[in-house]
Amino acid sequence: MPDDIPARGGSHAPGDRNVAAAGPDALLAGLDDYVAASRPEFERRLRELVGAAGVSADPAHAPDIVRTAELAAGQLREAGLSARIVPTAGNPVVVGEYLAGPSRPTVTIYNHLDVQPADPAEWVTEPFQLTVDGDRYVGRGSTDDKGPALTALQAAQYAAARELPLNIRFLWELEEEIGSPNFEAFVRAELPRLATDSVLVSDTIWIAADRPAIDYGLRGLVTFEVTIETGTADTHSGLTGGPARNPLTELAGIVAECVDPATGKVLVPGFADAVAPVSADELDDFVASGFDVDVFMAAHGLTALRVTDAREVVRRIMAEPTFEVHGFTGGYTGPGVKTVVPPRATVKLSARIVPHQQPAEVFALVRDFITTRHPDARVEMEAGLPPYLGPRTGPHAELAANAVDFAFGRRPAFVREGGSIGAVLTMDQYLKAPVTLLGLSLPSHGYHAPNEHFDWTQAAGGIRMFTHYFGGLAAQPR
Amino acid sequence: MPDDIPARGGSHAPGDRNVAAAGPDALLAGLDDYVAASRPEFERRLRELVGAAGVSADPAHAPDIVRTAELAAGQLREAGLSARIVPTAGNPVVVGEYLAGPSRPTVTIYNHLDVQPADPAEWVTEPFQLTVDGDRYVGRGSTDDKGPALTALQAAQYAAARELPLNIRFLWELEEEIGSPNFEAFVRAELPRLATDSVLVSDTIWIAADRPAIDYGLRGLVTFEVTIETGTADTHSGLTGGPARNPLTELAGIVAECVDPATGKVLVPGFADAVAPVSADELDDFVASGFDVDVFMAAHGLTALRVTDAREVVRRIMAEPTFEVHGFTGGYTGPGVKTVVPPRATVKLSARIVPHQQPAEVFALVRDFITTRHPDARVEMEAGLPPYLGPRTGPHAELAANAVDFAFGRRPAFVREGGSIGAVLTMDQYLKAPVTLLGLSLPSHGYHAPNEHFDWTQAAGGIRMFTHYFGGLAAQPR
Repeated sequence: MPDDIPARGGSHAPGDRNVAAAGPDALLAGLDDYVAASRPEFERRLRELVGAAGVSADPAHAPDIVRTAELAAGQLREAGLSARIVPTAGNPVVVGEYLAGPSRPTVTIYNHLDVQPADPAEWVTEPFQLTVDGDRYVGRGSTDDKGPALTALQAAQYAAARELPLNIRFLWELEEEIGSPNFEAFVRAELPRLATDSVLVSDTIWIAADRPAIDYGLRGLVTFEVTIETGTADTHSGLTGGPARNPLTELAGIVAECVDPATGKVLVPGFADAVAPVSADELDDFVASGFDVDVFMAAHGLTALRVTDAREVVRRIMAEPTFEVHGFTGGYTGPGVKTVVPPRATVKLSARIVPHQQPAEVFALVRDFITTRHPDARVEMEAGLPPYLGPRTGPHAELAANAVDFAFGRRPAFVREGGSIGAVLTMDQYLKAPVTLLGLSLPSHGYHAPNEHFDWTQAAGGIRMFTHYFGGLAAQPR
Repeated sequence: MPDDIPARGGSHAPGDRNVAAAGPDALLAGLDDYVAASRPEFERRLRELVGAAGVSADPAHAPDIVRTAELAAGQLREAGLSARIVPTAGNPVVVGEYLAGPSRPTVTIYNHLDVQPADPAEWVTEPFQLTVDGDRYVGRGSTDDKGPALTALQAAQYAAARELPLNIRFLWELEEEIGSPNFEAFVRAELPRLATDSVLVSDTIWIAADRPAIDYGLRGLVTFEVTIETGTADTHSGLTGGPARNPLTELAGIVAECVDPATGKVLVPGFADAVAPVSADELDDFVASGFDVDVFMAAHGLTALRVTDAREVVRRIMAEPTFEVHGFTGGYTGPGVKTVVPPRATVKLSARIVPHQQPAEVFALVRDFITTRHPDARVEMEAGLPPYLGPRTGPHAELAANAVDFAFGRRPAFVREGGSIGAVLTMDQYLKAPVTLLGLSLPSHGYHAPNEHFDWTQAAGGIRMFTHYFGGLAAQPR
């Protein structure tokens, strides 16, 4: 119970603690009472953070980012952890720590506390004011990612009070919604202070409400632009049409050379050579995650798909690369048709990539394919993220699965995520520790959508899940 | 000389006039003196009209359109013609008439007095204030189309003063630069008062400064949009990419099915079936117009072409259809790349068409080609203009060529225009009289461009040309 937890301040113990701590069973003994009693504290903390309105995409919210960081640091200290606000070239990272001692294993828990913008006109309630509606917590950031962050904090508070022999470190980023531009620099600068045995990320979504899911893979991404330039000014097709090259037409042709528009099959030779085949066992689990094609279509407002078989749909999202067109610039885009031939046009493209494709290699393949056929096309890479593939078996996966089973009464499906989480890759690269993705959000919670919400059922289960997982980590041989 | 011309007011003579008028040679006897003496009057009239700033595309200039009409009517009356301002659902048409008598032939002269917008930042001088720089007249509308209009007026003033047995009617439109939306309705409503034996349009550009050109053909145009819709909201390619259809990718594929992007060859079966072949003789004249590929490229700021042979370039502009992409809407077009998959996208397309293609037929061919392959593509026609092909031989062509030769010392090349002039088609359809296109503008004058100008050499030659042509028309057997 929160009131039972002694305030611990931010002090770092110099040596080992809790040498007398009991084993996992003892840890779980008072957990249900704690979870039930946690609710008001959890709601108060969520109310504080939602109210801080830390929209990272909008410079007008910069003071709210600062306020979010200060509130979060205060909540960490209140929970018995130390807290420091580490500045970066952009928004700070809040670091919280419960130190059980240098000989104990360490888990690093990543969440982010910045949020997407919110248009009050699209919301039933005030987006930056937590509305408690029965079990539902409505507010911007409630499920992405403040609710999961505070769920982990409640568990850490419990573990710290029980003097669990596990160091627990929180990294709460405040720039995730704008692509984590300074997170890598933060990790590099803080590296001596970030040594860890494992990483836990709680910023993912189950496929179905009744079936917990653990992500063990993420697609990577390479974004790039192709530009064709054949002149210096818009011309009028009555004066130039026929002999004049048309950059938009040529870009359309390039797209059609790279990808079959109907099937999405990438036509660039060699593009898929590095793709690791996905096993039938993995595919079985993807489908067993509760994935439903109709639910998927409704969730994203899709009225037609390239394929409709559930197994094929999830395979494409979780384990297949893509070649996608995101926009054309150049020419006329107002009402009606104006017969301009633009002097230049650009198409914005991306490829989602899967293990073991690499962004630079995929980009080079596509660029060379295009420029060999179109020597004056300018093909420029914008950004790249490698794919991530963690273990779906082994000690951490087993601990995570047991924790989920303990908390939610059902073993999780092991699935992959179609998107990228930059921070996962950064931590994988620099911290060199296994990353486990233990999400709590549900598809119905409305990530990035109006009327975003979280709920107490997921929070309560989450506190139990994280506590169980912490106990397992503490008991694990190093 | 202008001062020699008696003011005639706007009265319409009830019966024939100028029965005692002398023949063509007498008409031309005092012409050179008249032309020389006309210059101050021509410049004053051009200054008045340029200063009226009649930008039809900008509603803020609506009062300037009215002022332009009133000034123009005043100038017609001052020149000895009647004038009336005929309202339409949009901008009015100014009608001026010199009536020689009902038994005399009638020529109808079309010009427009509205102008393109002008951004003062791009101009060396004030765009809506005539600057006389030696022989050059700099100002918005000076060459398109006020200078040519006033050149014809100076000739009509001379002819009227000499009581030439030819009815001369001016139609001065004020919506040409926005596509003549009400000109057809005007012609239909005024039809009983617009009977004519021939039509003269002076709104075209020579190919080269030293070689007069007469247009006898115009390409037509059909504009249309293709839309693909596969959802209701932007989705994130990390969540949907793979199974989700991508409307932009599909539109790119449709474009590539319709046209070879490199050559511009239209791939829609039957598209070119109705194209009338252009004769070697016509092509010879196109090239003899003084067309130069480097000048063409420089004039339009083009740095590369699909073809570089002059004969092939002019053939494509003057006598070949096109399939052109003008813009894509949908997706993300800001800086960088955002990995959205849009729920719908539209591509804006047009086909320039040539005799004897027809807009509705061409559209139906393209629409059916697309929808057969892509049943859920929405293909919608926006606007259509048929091509125009007038005679390049015969009495009016011969009179026009002689007038040009008389005025500029060189027989004109007969060429076609790559664009459309809606008013020509309307007059051809309703007035059922041969249309002759006698332009005076030079490529260097900068149609639609900053620092647009006209010059006295073209004006002086133009007054001689029109006078000679009027004389020829008056002497022609009906």
